[in-house]
Amino acid sequence: MGQYELLVTLATAIFAVTGVLAAARQSMDALSFVIIGVVTAIGGGTLRDLVLDVPVFWLLEPDYLTVPAVASALAFFFERWIRETERLLLYLDGIATAMFAGLALQKTLVLGHGAGVAVVMAVIAGAGGGIIRDVMTGHPTILLRRELYITPIIVGCSGYFVLREITPLGAGTLSTLAIAIIAAIRIGSVRWGWAFPDWLTYRTTK
Amino acid sequence: MGQYELLVTLATAIFAVTGVLAAARQSMDALSFVIIGVVTAIGGGTLRDLVLDVPVFWLLEPDYLTVPAVASALAFFFERWIRETERLLLYLDGIATAMFAGLALQKTLVLGHGAGVAVVMAVIAGAGGGIIRDVMTGHPTILLRRELYITPIIVGCSGYFVLREITPLGAGTLSTLAIAIIAAIRIGSVRWGWAFPDWLTYRTTK
Amino acid sequence: MGQYELLVTLATAIFAVTGVLAAARQSMDALSFVIIGVVTAIGGGTLRDLVLDVPVFWLLEPDYLTVPAVASALAFFFERWIRETERLLLYLDGIATAMFAGLALQKTLVLGHGAGVAVVMAVIAGAGGGIIRDVMTGHPTILLRRELYITPIIVGCSGYFVLREITPLGAGTLSTLAIAIIAAIRIGSVRWGWAFPDWLTYRTTK
Repeated sequence: MGQYELLVTLATAIFAVTGVLAAARQSMDALSFVIIGVVTAIGGGTLRDLVLDVPVFWLLEPDYLTVPAVASALAFFFERWIRETERLLLYLDGIATAMFAGLALQKTLVLGHGAGVAVVMAVIAGAGGGIIRDVMTGHPTILLRRELYITPIIVGCSGYFVLREITPLGAGTLSTLAIAIIAAIRIGSVRWGWAFPDWLTYRTTK
Repeated sequence: MGQYELLVTLATAIFAVTGVLAAARQSMDALSFVIIGVVTAIGGGTLRDLVLDVPVFWLLEPDYLTVPAVASALAFFFERWIRETERLLLYLDGIATAMFAGLALQKTLVLGHGAGVAVVMAVIAGAGGGIIRDVMTGHPTILLRRELYITPIIVGCSGYFVLREITPLGAGTLSTLAIAIIAAIRIGSVRWGWAFPDWLTYRTTK
Repeated sequence: MGQYELLVTLATAIFAVTGVLAAARQSMDALSFVIIGVVTAIGGGTLRDLVLDVPVFWLLEPDYLTVPAVASALAFFFERWIRETERLLLYLDGIATAMFAGLALQKTLVLGHGAGVAVVMAVIAGAGGGIIRDVMTGHPTILLRRELYITPIIVGCSGYFVLREITPLGAGTLSTLAIAIIAAIRIGSVRWGWAFPDWLTYRTTK
């Protein structure tokens, strides 16, 4: 396993732990707990691969299943300790989200698709797992919450395409920058409560 | 873009606007609003293409993404004006549903599948986007509502196959007739509250 | 239709009937009732085939659509009689779940995938339809309930791989044993309320 795969696997583990801590409910059994972690970790990438019609990533590399499963199981038993580092975990989750989105952007462009499709895939990969988890556990999805989750992904991806036009940077550097932008905005939203201004927030007139 | 693609694109825009007006919630930010519109517009067709194992339609033609996105953004800013034409919009939505269903019927038959599969695909394409939207935004899905939504699709598709047996009409005319039947029943349900009779409505004996 | 297809078709019918009886709601119309039955019956297998990238099973054999549709329609009209045999039905549902899971295990291994992927596919095929149904009808999914549903599948599949290592049994016999284990644990959970012990049940410390 190279450095790249190691980072992705770590991101999967972080996704599983933060995902299951957000969604776990009173009286849930340990197995459901682990399944929720795994679904959060692999749901977005699975949807991305289905839409792109490429082999689902965890069919080829079972570590992408076992690592989040083990991480979720550890989170079950050491929850009290993990909760104490919850803010740190949310920052790590922002970085993991950014990596998932950046990877999906790269993967989609390499397949020959355009910028619009690549941004959608980044959103699906970065936010899809959390949405599937919330739907399965009866929580309101991120579409109904004020915190920024999909916005950082779209801004970071847009940054990628703007910088590609106006600089001579290569795909690798551009991806790294996009990931940094996404993580920074996401972490800012968690830390300082960044959100949309009122005039970009829906007030029903019904 | 031919006349055909233009109609489909228009239908996508209508789906986005009616979809997001039905599902938007207090305090939702503009981006979530737009995403809900896009999901409603492309969700059903995406599911149809995944099951049929053909390339997802918006991968090949990004206008199918940008048009509902722009329509949803306009709906966000001009909501007050749009709400005043809500009944008209619901009629247009009935026509758009009918077009999506009719197109899916055609597409599935051209791929060599039978009538049963084609009807299921028409239902998925016509109703899938709305169901995915409702699940993501925590609304009761159309399966739990009295209004007719899937029924018109099944009746219209059945009309297609009956007329194909007893008349010499070609596929294009049959599709147009099926679309007309679906739109008429859907609009009737909106306008006059058509619904299932009591003996075809579930009363739990639990 | 061979004996094997007959059994699968029967299992589909049982899934449809138990699924729709669990999810039906006051004032639901007969068509929504039938659709819920069909979704429960084919949802899990559809998801399995999409992820494995093989043709969705009911595209090739429309009986897998019509049989659960007819079974659900009969359940609508004869609900009172069927409710009286509800416990028997739940046992049959346990056997049907076990068959779906065992078939998915076999199918995935034949495609050349490893044990981890095969277990995940068994879970998707056995539990996916019920989860999709619950999400579409606004019920809490099995991930939030105490009864054992996914656990029997994982135990049965693990039994398959353990027995494959330590005995000379062939794939057919191993599958049958796995199906028997799954059905037995599932039925035990329904009959005697088997569930996870307290130390494997989540008590939030939040």
